[in-house]
Parts: sequence; structure tokens; C-alpha cells
Amino acid sequence: MPKVVVDVMPKPEILDPQGKAVLGALPRLGFDGVTDVRQGKRFELEVAGEVTDEVLARVHEMAATLLSNPVIENFTVHVDEAVADTPDVLS
Amino acid sequence: MPKVVVDVMPKPEILDPQGKAVLGALPRLGFDGVTDVRQGKRFELEVAGEVTDEVLARVHEMAATLLSNPVIENFTVHVDEAVADTPDVLS
Repeated sequence: MPKVVVDVMPKPEILDPQGKAVLGALPRLGFDGVTDVRQGKRFELEVAGEVTDEVLARVHEMAATLLSNPVIENFTVHVDEAVADTPDVLS
Repeated sequence: MPKVVVDVMPKPEILDPQGKAVLGALPRLGFDGVTDVRQGKRFELEVAGEVTDEVLARVHEMAATLLSNPVIENFTVHVDEAVADTPDVLS
């Protein structure tokens, strides 16, 4: 079953304390070379039936109204075939 | 500058109360046809210099030790060229 992925990230001009905390922790753990970290959210939506353009338009609406705060966050919507191949139950 | 993306998702066998809350809210907002929602985290790491296999291996280590809890979460690491094209500052 295909999954639709919604990625929600803080806008570039918005402070991201979680990302800054990760950025500060990396050198203390011995990881160098990372100059910036932004932390956002990832939603994987399983939809009934085929992923049509209409379904994607509805997911866009969901992302704008429920999954993100458009004042401070940007979102992207895409179909992830790789996710679709992941077994839902590990045996 | 290329960005390395780390997606962290709850393992399939782990309860995901945030995803369930979203799933429950969708019909109340008039959105039908979504059968499951999983919520995870997305990290965008900006690295100094080129993204070599060695850099990706280090990011894998970061993901396993700091960005995810391997007991309850899976993660994937990939280079996102699309993200790299996003302007960092909106003018």
C-alpha cells in the first residue's frame, strides 16, 4: 500500500531550539563537520486505494490545516514508494 | 550546500500515540480515506564540504547514538539535493 509522506520543517527564518540543541551536542559526542541542524516532523499517511492527484490535493489540505502551522513551518508532500515496500509487521 | 537528511520513525510494532491522535482528528476535520498515520522526526544536517561515504557513515553513527532511540525507532539517512536547493534566507 503506497504511503504519502508529509515533511514539516521550521521555516528558515524561525529559530529552531531543538535543532540547535542537537547541533550543540554533536561536538561533545565527538562528531565534527556539521554546521547546522534543523529538526522537523515527518508524517507517513497510509491511504485507502490509489494515490491520485485528488488524494494528494487532500493531503496538502491536511498538511496545511492539521499537520503544520503555516505561520512558522513549511511542508512538502510526496509519495514514498520505498516506504510502501517496508513490511508493516516484523515477523 | 548539500544537506543530509535523517528520518526517524517509530518502529512498526511500537505504539505511536501522536500518529493515532492525528488519525483520530482527520475525520473530525472532514478528511476521509486515511487508514493509518505514523509520526516521526526529520533532521536536516548541513555538513561542511562534500558529502562523501565517510561523512554518511558518520551521520549514520550520529543517527544511531543521538538522533534516534534504536530500541523503539528506525532511521534512514539520505542526501537531499532538493533541500540543498532551498534558499536559506527568504528575501
